[in-house]
Amino acid sequence: MTAYRKSKISIVGAGPGDPELLTIKAWKAIQQADVILYDALVNPSILEEAKENSHKVYVGKRANRHRYPQEVINQMMVQMAILHGHVVRLKGGDPFIFGRGHEELEYARQFDIPVDIVPGISSCIAVPELCEVPLTRRGINTGFWVMTATTSSGQLSEDVRLAANANATVVILMGMRKLPQIVDLFTVAGKPELPVMIIQNGSLPNEKKVSGTVRTIIDQAEAAQMGTPAIIVLGEVVKLEPEFARSALSQIELIK
Amino acid sequence: MTAYRKSKISIVGAGPGDPELLTIKAWKAIQQADVILYDALVNPSILEEAKENSHKVYVGKRANRHRYPQEVINQMMVQMAILHGHVVRLKGGDPFIFGRGHEELEYARQFDIPVDIVPGISSCIAVPELCEVPLTRRGINTGFWVMTATTSSGQLSEDVRLAANANATVVILMGMRKLPQIVDLFTVAGKPELPVMIIQNGSLPNEKKVSGTVRTIIDQAEAAQMGTPAIIVLGEVVKLEPEFARSALSQIELIK
Repeated sequence: MTAYRKSKISIVGAGPGDPELLTIKAWKAIQQADVILYDALVNPSILEEAKENSHKVYVGKRANRHRYPQEVINQMMVQMAILHGHVVRLKGGDPFIFGRGHEELEYARQFDIPVDIVPGISSCIAVPELCEVPLTRRGINTGFWVMTATTSSGQLSEDVRLAANANATVVILMGMRKLPQIVDLFTVAGKPELPVMIIQNGSLPNEKKVSGTVRTIIDQAEAAQMGTPAIIVLGEVVKLEPEFARSALSQIELIK
Repeated sequence: MTAYRKSKISIVGAGPGDPELLTIKAWKAIQQADVILYDALVNPSILEEAKENSHKVYVGKRANRHRYPQEVINQMMVQMAILHGHVVRLKGGDPFIFGRGHEELEYARQFDIPVDIVPGISSCIAVPELCEVPLTRRGINTGFWVMTATTSSGQLSEDVRLAANANATVVILMGMRKLPQIVDLFTVAGKPELPVMIIQNGSLPNEKKVSGTVRTIIDQAEAAQMGTPAIIVLGEVVKLEPEFARSALSQIELIK
């Protein structure tokens, strides 16, 4: 038996949380995998579909509690493919959106092992969508801009300032700690009344959300004890959220 | 039999083309549907999974050859739910990204019929991804901006100018006719050497792509006879595309 000949790596997106939002292709890869390397953000019930004798290894990391450094994950992925066959690297959302999936692809490409990529439903689109907020809407905007608030050196991204002047819906990931600076930039851009929504644990049973405006959102986030991981959506489309009017009203009362 | 009581509308994303990139949830909806209203962009083999006696109605429209006006689609969706039961409104990509899915949701919400939304893999992320171009990459950028080039009144969107100054990867849909103006704005922003990629019929067997720079892309698109529908990706991440170096080299020869 030459294990190397059936070695394969699939870099697979698991979507925002609901196991039924995996693609057919992702599902098949999980069922066929000899090894699954999965992240914190992946819903554990997804793993129940895997072969009983497959290796399931948690390699997730969260905020400052790193578990495996990226280079160790890369090496495990390749070594386990050589030893065991088909490795599925299962990642929350889409593997190429803030997921370091491309770094993993690039590493794996150095070896003589077939690698494929299975796109996943990205939370940046689906989490607002499942709250009935479309990132684009004819007549309201011409696009959407998804960003992290901080650059790799920890600074506030200069793009946040540009985004405050754009017509696009702005979706900010990993931005809760920079919320006051974000609010400042949108206020300076003359948009204190722009609707804002924050969604924590989007699409999961413990989802929590709050919506208001640039002017009110900090007080609201504090009152609702919003934590991380959360998605911040800024744009006129937030008004389309069914609870927006009610939520904005209760905020007016909160301020009184 | 009270047909009205089992009426239901699902607004479902079909992903970029590959039937295996549908979600489990989309697949189940299609299998259970009494009626499927589908668009031009949906791969026909997807419909083979539907119940044999289900109604499958093509309501797609393309560029200037409108088939059904939006209001007729809205009315069909509701009337067929009342008459036949479960209507699946199946749309290419994700229903809330430039898909008018939210307009359909809003219309359906006026009636006493349950409506649900099933997110799909959006082409704006997956098409570059399947070419191995990640829209985000640590150390290269902090986000991506997806837009149409034209506003609903047919003008070039003012956001294109802002985007030319952003660090984000810029993804432009329905922009081929405005390519010269887009190139001008990026040139004025001091980015003649920014990598650009155009992908036509992304993820389908007749996929065609070309990559180069802001300075070279118009000649290249002409030489390759690129048509619509196409996605334009502008950003340093385009350099990661495996054929980029080769393609850029052949362009240098083309110019000589």
